[in-house]
Amino acid sequence: MSKNLLGNNFITQIGILVHDIEKTSQVYADFFGVDKPEAIITDTVDKAQTEYRGESTVARAKLAFFNMGSLQLELIEPDEHPSTWREYLDEHGEGVHHIAFEIEGMKEKVQLLEGAQMPLVQKGEYEGGRYAYIDSVKDLKVMLELLEND
Amino acid sequence: MSKNLLGNNFITQIGILVHDIEKTSQVYADFFGVDKPEAIITDTVDKAQTEYRGESTVARAKLAFFNMGSLQLELIEPDEHPSTWREYLDEHGEGVHHIAFEIEGMKEKVQLLEGAQMPLVQKGEYEGGRYAYIDSVKDLKVMLELLEND
Repeated sequence: MSKNLLGNNFITQIGILVHDIEKTSQVYADFFGVDKPEAIITDTVDKAQTEYRGESTVARAKLAFFNMGSLQLELIEPDEHPSTWREYLDEHGEGVHHIAFEIEGMKEKVQLLEGAQMPLVQKGEYEGGRYAYIDSVKDLKVMLELLEND
Repeated sequence: MSKNLLGNNFITQIGILVHDIEKTSQVYADFFGVDKPEAIITDTVDKAQTEYRGESTVARAKLAFFNMGSLQLELIEPDEHPSTWREYLDEHGEGVHHIAFEIEGMKEKVQLLEGAQMPLVQKGEYEGGRYAYIDSVKDLKVMLELLEND
């Protein structure tokens, strides 16, 4: 039994890729009997500093969030620019993209995971924090997202 | 805004299909710093009354459960007999199969969902309750599992 690299094992979010976020948000809202959340769009690259596979990318995504118990379900509609969202959607179609964990010390955590053969795929900043997608698919059969809120 | 057919929107479980449950359970246990849970196997058809696409099936699966915050992560290794687990694993490879909700009144819920164009795919009994997999992939981009515990 080894130390938990993430610092916790509390899943805070499931991310689902979709082609049409307005349509699928409405279906979710109707199905779960909640208001349709307003979709937001991730920041432009100058602010988000988005990097995909080590390169800066102008890719953005529309996001919509539903609170489903203690965790958030996130719908993601990527644009056409290079990103893990676009790549995964093109390869696998609509469906689950990641499970997310809140962490502290992003830089250190990413390094620890890279040392464990789980490389960084994409990272970026958002208002009040930052995210990193980790290619853990070979080992965990699902991608991880790390979220660090300041 | 319509009534919530399920009665709640609290995700209780994420189910992940794997080829080798012993191997992936050990990876999860090591990664999250917890003990490796002992895998269980679903009951035989006489007890589980398993039905897949309206037909009785002898299919069984090995299951291993991890508590990840308020929800459970379930690893599933199906046998070779016809089931949603085997079908989905063959078609999509390893990865997320469903999100689960606890419900009351299984028969009525399944009927309501079928009326909403979300057909029953598989059902069965377990010690203390029963489950149903619902094909909600077209609308929700992920399969639903209903769990009713007595």
